Amino acid sequence: PRYDYVRDGQEIYRRSFATIRSEARLDHLPEDARVVAVRMVHASGDVDLTEHIAVHPRLVASARAALQGGAPIFADAQMIASGITRARLPRDNDVVCTLRDGRVPHLARDWGTTRSAAAVSLWDERLEGAVVAIGNAPTALFHLLETVADGGPRPAAVVGIPVGFIGSAESKNALAENPYDIPWLVVHGRRGGSALAASAVNALAREDEL
Amino acid sequence: PRYDYVRDGQEIYRRSFATIRSEARLDHLPEDARVVAVRMVHASGDVDLTEHIAVHPRLVASARAALQGGAPIFADAQMIASGITRARLPRDNDVVCTLRDGRVPHLARDWGTTRSAAAVSLWDERLEGAVVAIGNAPTALFHLLETVADGGPRPAAVVGIPVGFIGSAESKNALAENPYDIPWLVVHGRRGGSALAASAVNALAREDEL
Repeated sequence: PRYDYVRDGQEIYRRSFATIRSEARLDHLPEDARVVAVRMVHASGDVDLTEHIAVHPRLVASARAALQGGAPIFADAQMIASGITRARLPRDNDVVCTLRDGRVPHLARDWGTTRSAAAVSLWDERLEGAVVAIGNAPTALFHLLETVADGGPRPAAVVGIPVGFIGSAESKNALAENPYDIPWLVVHGRRGGSALAASAVNALAREDEL
Repeated sequence: PRYDYVRDGQEIYRRSFATIRSEARLDHLPEDARVVAVRMVHASGDVDLTEHIAVHPRLVASARAALQGGAPIFADAQMIASGITRARLPRDNDVVCTLRDGRVPHLARDWGTTRSAAAVSLWDERLEGAVVAIGNAPTALFHLLETVADGGPRPAAVVGIPVGFIGSAESKNALAENPYDIPWLVVHGRRGGSALAASAVNALAREDEL
């Protein structure tokens, strides 16, 4: 059979975003964060996702300023790094995932934690003023908050949407309640994932939707 | 603050899968496909996802046999390729995404279609007996079905879960109704995405859950 479908990529984007805006509830979000939520809905195919999204009032401004200043982006999963559209980044910003660094398995064993959490410790001083995207491991988000608590470098913005059934909701609550004045974006509850995290970063990277 | 959370990666997996099995409806799926659905729920954080999953009765057997025979995996997005756990593949199978091939922009322009659809045309003869994972573009899935309709090579199994608001549901219906006897897995409706597609392939790659 031959199928009847829209073949123009730009037209598909435009119609998709229009559908999302007409169906999704966005009025509980800061005005400058709605474009981020729209892109996350686009990545998930689910307009109800916005009910679970919460955003700190300074998240968008802080992340955009950091990226425009050339700050790197740290991700807890290679899939996120892979999903960030380099052409949208304002300063050809570095996108860093340390999960496959050779030191990670040893650190994880020594500390009795996950490799995702151990990988966060390798972000080091460049984490100061950076943008963080966590889309996989609650343990990575908890570890990040602990290093900040210990006086470590503070990121400019944290997209904290680890997915899962064990610790995920709790880690996002901890981020949203962080006492360090670090702006955040979360998807409350169990949902999250690399595709959502990458889509949020892609929206933060540039104001234009297309 | 210090946080109280499970730090043992294997234990997190075990508890997660146990939670999913206790909460998600799976009885509408072929028995050998339930482990695939569990892994997709794990990637999405949403037990209700299973309501939208449908699986051809021979999908799992056909995909597993193909992979064990060394067949390549074709993906429509780099994120999927990035999310496939190489250690789970039985024959160090090739994982191929042609979206960034230099010929793709020209082909897309010439044919008046998306780059995702044009990229599918480069899969070529190796597509015969391969495993396909589409997690992004409905146009890629439509194009694949059209090349099969034209007498092109037939994959052994198609994980067809493009995400979105324009053409996504229709492309998955077309796959599930394909008259070519190609086994399929779909998430009906708008939902889908690279993370789900990668998780499905990771489950198909090996019978063991951990």
